[in-house]
Amino acid sequence: MIVALAGGVGGAKLAHGLARILSPDDLLVAVNTGDDFEHLGLHIAPDLDSVMYKLAGLNDAVRGWGLADESWAFMDALARLGGEDWFSLGDRDLATHVERTRRLVAGETLSQATAALAAALGVAHRIAPMSDDPVRTWVETPEGALPFQHYFVRLRCEPVVTGFAFEGADRAVPAPALAAALADPALEAIVLCPSNPFVSIGPMLAMPALADALAARRVPLVAVSPILGGAAVKGPAAKMMAELGVPVSSAGIAAQYGALLDGIVIDAADAADVAGIEAGGVRVLAAPTLMRDAGDERALAEAVLGFARGIERRAP
Amino acid sequence: MIVALAGGVGGAKLAHGLARILSPDDLLVAVNTGDDFEHLGLHIAPDLDSVMYKLAGLNDAVRGWGLADESWAFMDALARLGGEDWFSLGDRDLATHVERTRRLVAGETLSQATAALAAALGVAHRIAPMSDDPVRTWVETPEGALPFQHYFVRLRCEPVVTGFAFEGADRAVPAPALAAALADPALEAIVLCPSNPFVSIGPMLAMPALADALAARRVPLVAVSPILGGAAVKGPAAKMMAELGVPVSSAGIAAQYGALLDGIVIDAADAADVAGIEAGGVRVLAAPTLMRDAGDERALAEAVLGFARGIERRAP
Repeated sequence: MIVALAGGVGGAKLAHGLARILSPDDLLVAVNTGDDFEHLGLHIAPDLDSVMYKLAGLNDAVRGWGLADESWAFMDALARLGGEDWFSLGDRDLATHVERTRRLVAGETLSQATAALAAALGVAHRIAPMSDDPVRTWVETPEGALPFQHYFVRLRCEPVVTGFAFEGADRAVPAPALAAALADPALEAIVLCPSNPFVSIGPMLAMPALADALAARRVPLVAVSPILGGAAVKGPAAKMMAELGVPVSSAGIAAQYGALLDGIVIDAADAADVAGIEAGGVRVLAAPTLMRDAGDERALAEAVLGFARGIERRAP
Repeated sequence: MIVALAGGVGGAKLAHGLARILSPDDLLVAVNTGDDFEHLGLHIAPDLDSVMYKLAGLNDAVRGWGLADESWAFMDALARLGGEDWFSLGDRDLATHVERTRRLVAGETLSQATAALAAALGVAHRIAPMSDDPVRTWVETPEGALPFQHYFVRLRCEPVVTGFAFEGADRAVPAPALAAALADPALEAIVLCPSNPFVSIGPMLAMPALADALAARRVPLVAVSPILGGAAVKGPAAKMMAELGVPVSSAGIAAQYGALLDGIVIDAADAADVAGIEAGGVRVLAAPTLMRDAGDERALAEAVLGFARGIERRAP
């Protein structure tokens, strides 16, 4: 059994590849909720939805977020009314947020609401939020801290990043499914998907109980680098690394995760990074990491699984 | 200056006719909110929206409610998720509910939110809720009381009606614009639109402060009958009258309003009712009341205004 920790698009792609190989009982995808926010009275969970839509085969691959065959009548009408229209919500996507919010208001946990939504969309594999407790990512900038979606969507990642804060993480505990999977004797490996180390995986690692569980693991933990040829495949990871003085490379990713890693999968094009990373005691697999289609996703998932199953947990 | 008290479709049509004749400052349309309800976390105000969309020229005339050129992607997606889909919300219409709810949650009154929404849609004439206080109509049936929208939409008006309750009406006061208009020395007449006397006008009259203001008026009050040839033009008015033992006729409507009326406009086809109503001291105008298009709406509005301006307030 495999636990995959995932953010949005890149995480969703690898999760999709893993789901093609592993049976539903043999995979848990635990998803960042630091990006979640309340907007227009709705609980919006962008990363959970990216993973859910992808595993359901309903995602829009061109746009990179939301549902395929989406329409925007609601947003057009909201703009006409002078409403807050900086965060685009498709007509079909909106139903997810409304139904999730209804379930949360009715007393369900985010785990329960997520399971119900995913089941309704026909997702067989297990998707869980990283936590049922609220964790909210703040992006620190010279002009002050910004709620993540204001930085990410409203300001299009333009402000310079000086750091991050994960509000609520100190009190948050891993979601029941994640805690159970990490304690399951059948667990074979933990995979950090090719997601942003700061704002996708970072909020998870900021939970002391998750950090403790990862430190106490008996199985290997491998990351898949989201950096390819000195750039991020998608999103602000490379920009953040540069602004924070982290080398924009897979070696920089390995350094960011530090002693947590037993291994890392980097792109074959970045083979020059291998020696430096291995010198730090981390095993490296250089393989094609760009996922352009389902074939790439499956191939990378197979490479990651083979790699993870072939290495040992480093001595803590 | 004219105050029109309106429910949904029939009220919206006459209000539209009045708005063609009267300047924005010379008309206040005060709208039933007893049909309002909380649904999917949203404050839905069906009658306010019917009047607002009609005055904005955006209503769907064929369907009879909601916006023209509407789409239903949200509802389709919500149904797929197993959400509550018995109350249809169009993609564009949904923006109205979301923006109204946002404004209410931010602390605006329903009057303020309504004025902002109507202005954004280009409505020049004033639309106000009957009250900023919550009033909720319950429909009493042999099987118990039903919230109005459950009776009206979910159960398609099928249960037999034994009475009504207007929760909150005893504590509700007229909205500021309505109270001010009724006290305005420029007020010429009050018009009860051709709306359901029980569930559109009834919730208004159930507010003691409004009933008192109407009783203290110095100007004539005229109703327009929603019954034509023994049937309601739209909606459950005739069915309710029959179940409550009220004659299904314009005479029955006049009897229902009782001493409140100075005059009533009934359809020319129901001229046989004139003598009976006038015997009760209520003046009658028999005129075409069916509003099939904007020309009918304007013609009826002109007839109603001419009639109202030509009669006196009965001695209280």
